[in-house]
Amino acid sequence: MQSLQQKASEWSGVPTDDAFAIDDTNLFQKLSLQTFINLSTNFYNRVYDDEEEWFRSIFANSEKESAIQNQYEFFVQRMGGPSLYSQRRGHPALIARHRPFPVTHQAAERWLHHMQQALDSTPEIDDDSKIKMMNFFRHTAYFLVAGDELKNQSQPIPCKHAAGR
Amino acid sequence: MQSLQQKASEWSGVPTDDAFAIDDTNLFQKLSLQTFINLSTNFYNRVYDDEEEWFRSIFANSEKESAIQNQYEFFVQRMGGPSLYSQRRGHPALIARHRPFPVTHQAAERWLHHMQQALDSTPEIDDDSKIKMMNFFRHTAYFLVAGDELKNQSQPIPCKHAAGR
Repeated sequence: MQSLQQKASEWSGVPTDDAFAIDDTNLFQKLSLQTFINLSTNFYNRVYDDEEEWFRSIFANSEKESAIQNQYEFFVQRMGGPSLYSQRRGHPALIARHRPFPVTHQAAERWLHHMQQALDSTPEIDDDSKIKMMNFFRHTAYFLVAGDELKNQSQPIPCKHAAGR
Repeated sequence: MQSLQQKASEWSGVPTDDAFAIDDTNLFQKLSLQTFINLSTNFYNRVYDDEEEWFRSIFANSEKESAIQNQYEFFVQRMGGPSLYSQRRGHPALIARHRPFPVTHQAAERWLHHMQQALDSTPEIDDDSKIKMMNFFRHTAYFLVAGDELKNQSQPIPCKHAAGR
């Protein structure tokens, strides 16, 4: 069986080494908290206004302000800053927390499309950081697609009512 | 609905702030890689020799050497060291990776029992670090118990064969 990160690398085209090149430098120190807040605000403004209704609807039951905060706190924590996310919400547990959402290949690509645009319109982020972050995001998006498939591996629930007929 | 970390705090008795007090100091720099290797080796020696067969059997399909490496690489990464775990295996995704195992309250307590003994018999670990780590472990163990319950929230699989009768 292929592991989660093997699938993530294969499907995203990003080797694990490149995905975690975000750890080569401390991006939080380089970019500052405000830059991460700007990026996530920029990103979710695009997502909540997406003309593609199928994608926009994935976020319909989430508050935009919460989505922004959850995202930048996770990015800050993962990219060398204080553990803002865990202090408030516990472990990131990325796959489990994406469980309510349909994380398909198509959804991953749409997420990445908006993130690329958000990065490109956040001028505080230099090109080297942008490449590192995009590799991390691309790998992570497909890591979550791989994680989403675990949902289909549940033990089937016995069909008690039907069997009892 | 109670969130994962609310359940983890309530069941473990460890508030989130105390659980992530591991981030107040850089425990990796304080303790060194070798200490983490020693701790995980000590821990899994106890687990694989556990007189409680029900607990020991949870690990029956895992290689002890791999279990040790996965654990100390995660601890190192989470406690201020290089991201050894992610470089090799991707995101920790703690809940998803524990999916194959029955993470019950009883199993959490047995895990914690062995970890307390492992910490107490690793003399390189000072008392302050030990308290911080044990709070982190206790909270995390119950975070995973809370995560384990998500498995029971799968959408029921439609009983096609039965319905077609």
